[in-house]
Amino acid sequence: MKDSDRPVGIFDSGLGGLTVFKALRDLLPGENLIYFGDTARVPYGTKSAQAVISFSSEITRFLLERRIKLLIVACNTASSLALDEIRKISPVPVMGVIKPGVDAAAAALPHGGRVLVTGTTATVNSRAYSRALAAAAPALDVTEKACPLFVPIVEEGWCSKPVAALVAREYLAPFRRRKIDALILGCTHYPMLKRVIARVMGPKVKIVDSARAAALAARAELESRGLLNRGRRGASEFVVSDAPERFSDLAGRLLGIRTGRVAVKRF
Amino acid sequence: MKDSDRPVGIFDSGLGGLTVFKALRDLLPGENLIYFGDTARVPYGTKSAQAVISFSSEITRFLLERRIKLLIVACNTASSLALDEIRKISPVPVMGVIKPGVDAAAAALPHGGRVLVTGTTATVNSRAYSRALAAAAPALDVTEKACPLFVPIVEEGWCSKPVAALVAREYLAPFRRRKIDALILGCTHYPMLKRVIARVMGPKVKIVDSARAAALAARAELESRGLLNRGRRGASEFVVSDAPERFSDLAGRLLGIRTGRVAVKRF
Repeated sequence: MKDSDRPVGIFDSGLGGLTVFKALRDLLPGENLIYFGDTARVPYGTKSAQAVISFSSEITRFLLERRIKLLIVACNTASSLALDEIRKISPVPVMGVIKPGVDAAAAALPHGGRVLVTGTTATVNSRAYSRALAAAAPALDVTEKACPLFVPIVEEGWCSKPVAALVAREYLAPFRRRKIDALILGCTHYPMLKRVIARVMGPKVKIVDSARAAALAARAELESRGLLNRGRRGASEFVVSDAPERFSDLAGRLLGIRTGRVAVKRF
Repeated sequence: MKDSDRPVGIFDSGLGGLTVFKALRDLLPGENLIYFGDTARVPYGTKSAQAVISFSSEITRFLLERRIKLLIVACNTASSLALDEIRKISPVPVMGVIKPGVDAAAAALPHGGRVLVTGTTATVNSRAYSRALAAAAPALDVTEKACPLFVPIVEEGWCSKPVAALVAREYLAPFRRRKIDALILGCTHYPMLKRVIARVMGPKVKIVDSARAAALAARAELESRGLLNRGRRGASEFVVSDAPERFSDLAGRLLGIRTGRVAVKRF
């Protein structure tokens, strides 16, 4: 097997990371992709750092056995807590979802401005985005807003229902007065609410889709290492730690991803 | 200290059980009450049975040291998984929230009928209510419906906002056609949405508030044992395992409970 034929590994605590999978699939149709969803232990946001590091390391070892050439940690909590530990055990490059989103926001606002970071309560409380933005672009004025109803709305398949728009207005309308320049979708579920959120914020606010930003960063990484697979149609494989049927059903309903058979790997 | 002066212990994984606390406080103003919220480990619904039993046993021992005369497990998950184990270590009577709700539904429909049980995904998947209803009232026709947005709506303090009504309609309107006779609020958070839910279901549907049912059952239990405290104004004490300020703030905002200082006990 040529190195470029080896798969890209992606993992998340559940199915949110499928937005990263989808962005990658669209951008790099030739890549072989393997996705792992830790559905037995979702959510990571309420677990201790030690637990998240331990789970992430197990999944990394599993994906390394599958001979991946690049690992994308498509989970905000694991990206915030476990990247250093994962890099210690991984001979292949490892990327999270926070830095690509932060870099995209910084690039979109080269002259400074106001950034609103949306995420789960756990992500917002971790202040991972504020810290990363302060390091990457100290001139930006950053506010974080937890939007705990967004994930269940996505998982109910309600993104196009009036309730999604109403909840988005409830969370975000107060920020319209504050002249926000960019909004970061700081949770891998949120790109599924991108249109609704964009409509609430209005056309002047740049919406930073961290799933797409991660896919673009992955392409750049593969390109720079000469590892891009220029084949025509890559294979897609899905593995979860629990409830494969529910995963397959939601992947289809929420993102139009036809998973085929989803394998189960328990730890 | 007289036996009747000893406190009633109540515990939940978080703050939902405060609806049981409040119902008890209204019904039995003379009782001394001690509430424990396991806010460091909430939610229990996604944990293994072994973990829920272990946490519940720790909390039970803590409350027994406080010389409680009755223990109310104000958490559906612990009521479903841990009651037997708790009873093994408790010399005082132990009550859950499932049986009182089920008994109230059975009493409300002596000639049979259709019952809709609402709860979290974890509670509905456990089928604890269906099993308890089948045992208590086999003639009832039971349907369960998971309403995962209800808890975050309550915890955001949005019970009176239009979004609460819209979400309740989204979940429950399809059941209006099916001639439901009674709806059980099978999650200790849900009594805070009682009015909204009642409005969606219409006046013919009996709403069974399991928090109030548990308080009534506790009064009956204390009365039968001669343990009722007929004093004028009992003391209230609150202990949590994490984030006491947030707990105190939400207790005030959501239920109008002025907790005073909330103590912290870590396990």
